[in-house]
Amino acid sequence: METDTITAISTPMGEGAIAIVRLSGPEAVAISANLFQGKNLNEVDSHTMHYGKIIDPETKEMAEEVMVSVMRAPKTFTREDIVEINCHGGLVSVNRLLEIVLASGARLAEPGEFTKRAFMNGRIDLSQAEAVMDLIRAKTDRAMNVALKQMDGRLSRLIQDLRQKLLETLAHVEVNIDYPEYDDVEEMSHDMMEQKTKEVHEEVTRILDTARQGKILREGLGTAIIGRPNVGKSSLMNALVHENKAIVTEVPGTTRDVIEEYVNVRGVPLRLIDTAGIRETEDIVERIGVERSRQVLKEADLILFVLNYGEELTDEDEQLLEAISDMNVITIVNKMDLEQKLDIDRVKQLAGDHPVVTTALIREEGIDQLENAISDTFFEGDLDAGDMTYVSNVRHVQLLKQAKESLEDAQNGMAMGVPLDVVQIDVTRTWEILGEIVGDTVNESLIDQLFSQFCLGK
Amino acid sequence: METDTITAISTPMGEGAIAIVRLSGPEAVAISANLFQGKNLNEVDSHTMHYGKIIDPETKEMAEEVMVSVMRAPKTFTREDIVEINCHGGLVSVNRLLEIVLASGARLAEPGEFTKRAFMNGRIDLSQAEAVMDLIRAKTDRAMNVALKQMDGRLSRLIQDLRQKLLETLAHVEVNIDYPEYDDVEEMSHDMMEQKTKEVHEEVTRILDTARQGKILREGLGTAIIGRPNVGKSSLMNALVHENKAIVTEVPGTTRDVIEEYVNVRGVPLRLIDTAGIRETEDIVERIGVERSRQVLKEADLILFVLNYGEELTDEDEQLLEAISDMNVITIVNKMDLEQKLDIDRVKQLAGDHPVVTTALIREEGIDQLENAISDTFFEGDLDAGDMTYVSNVRHVQLLKQAKESLEDAQNGMAMGVPLDVVQIDVTRTWEILGEIVGDTVNESLIDQLFSQFCLGK
Repeated sequence: METDTITAISTPMGEGAIAIVRLSGPEAVAISANLFQGKNLNEVDSHTMHYGKIIDPETKEMAEEVMVSVMRAPKTFTREDIVEINCHGGLVSVNRLLEIVLASGARLAEPGEFTKRAFMNGRIDLSQAEAVMDLIRAKTDRAMNVALKQMDGRLSRLIQDLRQKLLETLAHVEVNIDYPEYDDVEEMSHDMMEQKTKEVHEEVTRILDTARQGKILREGLGTAIIGRPNVGKSSLMNALVHENKAIVTEVPGTTRDVIEEYVNVRGVPLRLIDTAGIRETEDIVERIGVERSRQVLKEADLILFVLNYGEELTDEDEQLLEAISDMNVITIVNKMDLEQKLDIDRVKQLAGDHPVVTTALIREEGIDQLENAISDTFFEGDLDAGDMTYVSNVRHVQLLKQAKESLEDAQNGMAMGVPLDVVQIDVTRTWEILGEIVGDTVNESLIDQLFSQFCLGK
Repeated sequence: METDTITAISTPMGEGAIAIVRLSGPEAVAISANLFQGKNLNEVDSHTMHYGKIIDPETKEMAEEVMVSVMRAPKTFTREDIVEINCHGGLVSVNRLLEIVLASGARLAEPGEFTKRAFMNGRIDLSQAEAVMDLIRAKTDRAMNVALKQMDGRLSRLIQDLRQKLLETLAHVEVNIDYPEYDDVEEMSHDMMEQKTKEVHEEVTRILDTARQGKILREGLGTAIIGRPNVGKSSLMNALVHENKAIVTEVPGTTRDVIEEYVNVRGVPLRLIDTAGIRETEDIVERIGVERSRQVLKEADLILFVLNYGEELTDEDEQLLEAISDMNVITIVNKMDLEQKLDIDRVKQLAGDHPVVTTALIREEGIDQLENAISDTFFEGDLDAGDMTYVSNVRHVQLLKQAKESLEDAQNGMAMGVPLDVVQIDVTRTWEILGEIVGDTVNESLIDQLFSQFCLGK
């Protein structure tokens, strides 16, 4: 168990009204009290705030006007003593404050180390810790709801229920083997074992089915807007951005060159793929041919293919539509205000099962239908984020897939008449794999690696 | 006096560990208590923090896991009740939290409105309020110290002392005029009035003398790096950035296209002018001629002119050096590790009073000397930020200049034998002008305009 005191800036870097330097650990209060001119923080009640000044011990000068919050263990985020020093939110001032705190005996926290301590000290399990990060990175309300529910322990409970079921089954087999003389314990039959593994298998499968939506909510839907020049691609982009909130985030750890843009459409975050690239797709087909276009577009989760109602369909259009027919395509027939030249029946025929939406973007017509089509494509039927527990985390999905395979191994074994004490091995493995999701059975290096993906100060 | 309850996100926008939605006003506690699942916030002590959940009144679902701080008037930043809701710092989650608070009866705060209330309610004066913003925008420690001291009321006290001096003088004249029969009050003579106005004039002049440094500390020193190709301009830029912290800020209210880069050199923030432009100055003289280069460079506060020790001086170099001889130029003779071809005596002759520094940037030699030269150019002698009260705010400088002029009007009047009760008019005007700095004599629209430059949530 770590016992030093860590610190970091816990608010985003930038100009703002308030910035926070957070400390956690046994010396958090003492370090702050040393720097603080005001009440004696060593003696104040837990969960109280105090106005005062931070004095730089080197220069004996005031370094900051602050409001300090003292929260004592164990009722804190990390279950350790926590002090939050709130200062005026300038880049320089908060950095200097951090430097002073570091010079006074605290250690700079690693990314995610506060949350890691919350996990290590038993306040939250691993899937909840991961949800904290998902919450911070959420691009839409829906994505946030999924993270909130996971943080609230919904996924944890689901997984723990399954593990409990497996554990009881295992215990039952164990008793049968170890104490065959106990008549009052019902013998675990192949049938019963099959029934139990089938139940767990069904539930794991059900959870995995939500993974695609979960991933989309978490990471956004890679979206490419394509079409010939002058069909209205820019208008479409503007309409989507204008109607909805565009979220621009800088990808952490990179320079400002890599910027991702998200548009929130009915709770689905569209991640506009390589905007510059899209602008260059104007003549993508002419330039690189149908087959290569297809390859480029394969990276997209959704293709918005725009046609002009006032222009005839070209051979390239037809070829491209056919070539991408196995991808997620929404065909948008734009400029419905022009005189018809497009053979719209032919378009619908080529589109097959994919939706075709008609718009006059310049008149702001058809945008609603388009957004419905986007939403329907990804939340088929009445999937309701309100009730669903989505798995979205790649690690969770991997583990669930392994658990599923392991259950299938058990089932295959039973089908082949393998004795229960051998089947038991696969079932135990399933129990362990599921344990990794909540962090009951994971190793230190995995934990380190997981939390290192967090943002600093969390 | 405003009496509604305002709210805003008070942390910078971005992904971070903690985000804060702040409320201030009579309903701050009641609104928060309504949304909060946990203790009854209406009944908790002032300056305490409480863990709980924010429930969306519309959906009755948990919207956020939060820590709520309750601070009751008058011991708060605004002198009103303040509630700070700390949540996990995602863009979507903090925005949703703000929406819920807005839907519950709070009004979205205008930029700077929290600080404005602190001013309106008498907690701070205007120059202190302006210092709050300077502090947030500070680019270096030195700039921050100036802002901190101003926030601490140092400039305010200086100004109030001067006003007091003027007021006493005015009162004295007034008594002489109104009660000529009072023999026991010494008569205010022209000599005495001259002495007093001289004292104030000297002090105002002294403060104004700090303005250039103050402005540089606040806004950075517009710096252009020029020189022919291959002299080492990029190495210089890298050396400065590498040795020091580069601060990149997005200019508020603009798209990400306008980005300012600062390099902190010995507390002097160098604002690298139009980096793209600098890269294009490689052949600026060849391209646009000496005269136009001069015009372009006039916008810079500091020119770093780089020469190559291993190359002969060209005619363009000579012409340019002469052309910019009345600007702030530091000539850097780089690549001292090469065989000499440059006539360094000629360079020094051309540079005149301007410093010439020799470097071998590739070997990291001479950078210290260069930084000394930069620092010396702008903090001549032993100006010590620790003791100085710099004026940096454009508004303050303008007002001080007006005050100075007004004092000079009074002095000229006295020199021409104008009676004291007429001179009094100019002195009264000076007193009023100085009052505008601290906000004693300013009008509502100016106040609105001032605070609108603040960042949201402050």
